[in-house]
Amino acid sequence: MTTVSVVYHSGYGHTEVVALAIGEGVTNAGANVNMIKVGADGTILDADWDLLNKSEAIIFGAPTYMGSVSGPFKMFMDATSKIWFTKGWKDKLAGGFTNSLSMSGDKLNSLFQMAILAAQHGMIWIPQPEANTSTSEAGKSGNSESINRIGSYLGVMTQSDNVAPDQSPNAGDIKTAQLFGARMVEAAKRWNK
Amino acid sequence: MTTVSVVYHSGYGHTEVVALAIGEGVTNAGANVNMIKVGADGTILDADWDLLNKSEAIIFGAPTYMGSVSGPFKMFMDATSKIWFTKGWKDKLAGGFTNSLSMSGDKLNSLFQMAILAAQHGMIWIPQPEANTSTSEAGKSGNSESINRIGSYLGVMTQSDNVAPDQSPNAGDIKTAQLFGARMVEAAKRWNK
Amino acid sequence: MTTVSVVYHSGYGHTEVVALAIGEGVTNAGANVNMIKVGADGTILDADWDLLNKSEAIIFGAPTYMGSVSGPFKMFMDATSKIWFTKGWKDKLAGGFTNSLSMSGDKLNSLFQMAILAAQHGMIWIPQPEANTSTSEAGKSGNSESINRIGSYLGVMTQSDNVAPDQSPNAGDIKTAQLFGARMVEAAKRWNK
Amino acid sequence: MTTVSVVYHSGYGHTEVVALAIGEGVTNAGANVNMIKVGADGTILDADWDLLNKSEAIIFGAPTYMGSVSGPFKMFMDATSKIWFTKGWKDKLAGGFTNSLSMSGDKLNSLFQMAILAAQHGMIWIPQPEANTSTSEAGKSGNSESINRIGSYLGVMTQSDNVAPDQSPNAGDIKTAQLFGARMVEAAKRWNK
Repeated sequence: MTTVSVVYHSGYGHTEVVALAIGEGVTNAGANVNMIKVGADGTILDADWDLLNKSEAIIFGAPTYMGSVSGPFKMFMDATSKIWFTKGWKDKLAGGFTNSLSMSGDKLNSLFQMAILAAQHGMIWIPQPEANTSTSEAGKSGNSESINRIGSYLGVMTQSDNVAPDQSPNAGDIKTAQLFGARMVEAAKRWNK
Repeated sequence: MTTVSVVYHSGYGHTEVVALAIGEGVTNAGANVNMIKVGADGTILDADWDLLNKSEAIIFGAPTYMGSVSGPFKMFMDATSKIWFTKGWKDKLAGGFTNSLSMSGDKLNSLFQMAILAAQHGMIWIPQPEANTSTSEAGKSGNSESINRIGSYLGVMTQSDNVAPDQSPNAGDIKTAQLFGARMVEAAKRWNK
Repeated sequence: MTTVSVVYHSGYGHTEVVALAIGEGVTNAGANVNMIKVGADGTILDADWDLLNKSEAIIFGAPTYMGSVSGPFKMFMDATSKIWFTKGWKDKLAGGFTNSLSMSGDKLNSLFQMAILAAQHGMIWIPQPEANTSTSEAGKSGNSESINRIGSYLGVMTQSDNVAPDQSPNAGDIKTAQLFGARMVEAAKRWNK
Repeated sequence: MTTVSVVYHSGYGHTEVVALAIGEGVTNAGANVNMIKVGADGTILDADWDLLNKSEAIIFGAPTYMGSVSGPFKMFMDATSKIWFTKGWKDKLAGGFTNSLSMSGDKLNSLFQMAILAAQHGMIWIPQPEANTSTSEAGKSGNSESINRIGSYLGVMTQSDNVAPDQSPNAGDIKTAQLFGARMVEAAKRWNK
């Protein structure tokens, strides 16, 4: 059975909501999911490393802080260098998502970081394939149901207000995340047929 | 007197609206402005090159097409290589702006391109300094008056719908552009005091 | 039979040498290759568009001029927007290469541009998987046989001196390109099994 | 008197050698320098924050690990968010440098991260202005005296082998770093005249 791991850091819970939505998308598409949360010190458990190493696909996620992935997530990224030396993740699939307070908020820079990490590992990058379905005149911001309202393709971008994580990001962002989880399963099944 | 040039390409007129707003900001701040439009073939007039060479600051602008600056603007960027050989633009100030249909639409990538161009020329990069003033619950998309509603800092990002350029980008984007024109004048005066 | 297209621009012939090496790698790995050269005006033939549309994988290549892909190649990238509207390249594999005079020369920015283009199309990105085999004390520049001497992973980076294209890039860069062609075939066969 | 701060992380000492060379350049150009080393936990002293806040220019430096700035340096970058809220660094000058084992090693991505950080703070970005002086046929890698042998412009890129920091990066890289320190002083004096 296909296994997808979602490894993420979340400072205030909003990125975690997106991570969980991706995980739902994975499960609903008929695959196993490992939800692995990076601690504030940038570490994960030894058992988590095993889970990552046994996955067909790894989805990276972090909030964008000051224009790039959060410090704890970068600590995790650095820790993957041990695996890099042995090419342990070569040929796994990879993808990414990031959340911040602004629509852009330089989130593309975080996705670049994740795509570069994946490339150094020799991983295959699966982009976010959904078109922006916003049709609103209100500056393409999209209503609460719009898919990919921010217009991001390298990975999933979501946006949250300064409210509790159960209120924001909005329903469309959550749906976009779920779709991405399912997309990764579809890709992993095809790649490993 | 301080002179700022705005050199831009615009495919359908939306980017031109932003360019003109920046030009207004420059003029209102008490400086000369050269508005230089790159043709569909990527060229500008010889007289325009003279204007650029005599400016204290150059602001680059282009729509983001398929995730980076429009082809005609890239043709113009390549043509600056003649100046690069003689370091003719070293120590001029530089800035950038870009417009697209989506909120992100990978516009950050276009700003990276412009910042890299400026760096190769040894130009000093002036970022977009305004905070995102959106307070809306509607996903930080901002209402029509919000400044920097997209949350961009390396340069100015604006967003336009598929309507006539006099209707979109919205008033907040136009104001953000005007402020950036004034910011560039302020910086040019300080740098050349 | 698997078909890989290499669509590239080359201003002075150095990038073409790399393109041809990738093409050799494709052929040697038992796949068909289409070599499609973008003209100085950014166009390709209608028949070339058909070839691209029928390929399992497309490898993008361009020299890096002033820190991003050459103007003619950007014109080509923009022209793919017609395909973007119909998602015609979704699920194809993609990769990229770029050449310039300096070791970095901001070539990573060109690879970002290509990866973004591919992501907008919903294409799967295949990175350059070879480790840097330089062992020289001479600043990791590598000797003439080193694989991936520049240390690039998102795609293939090569470097050429101001000499004829049959003399530079060096043998290691050519070999790196050939390996990437073969890697793409391997990935395309697995993806389309 | 002009004061420039160099705030950096160094894992094995090679980046520190570059930092110190930039510091020498600052001193030799007749300015004060604060050398501030970020700890392995990403922190600096309270007194160091005061030094940064009182500087006319801040130069950011970090090794590139797995394609972006080291985790500890990212922790530091995140900690600057407190200053971001009050725009405390607006109008300061900024620059950046990064070191890794390969010539590219995705170092441009680290410089992008630093430039984005600076832009979010409203800081003015001073690029690395020296041309690549390599004339070698050996793949433009440069001999040990070449300035900017890697061909980097957004900031300073250096490369070190797996040897002691007193042996690598090479003399040309050290000289490039010194020149950048002096360049920053020149810019800071002009900006604050």
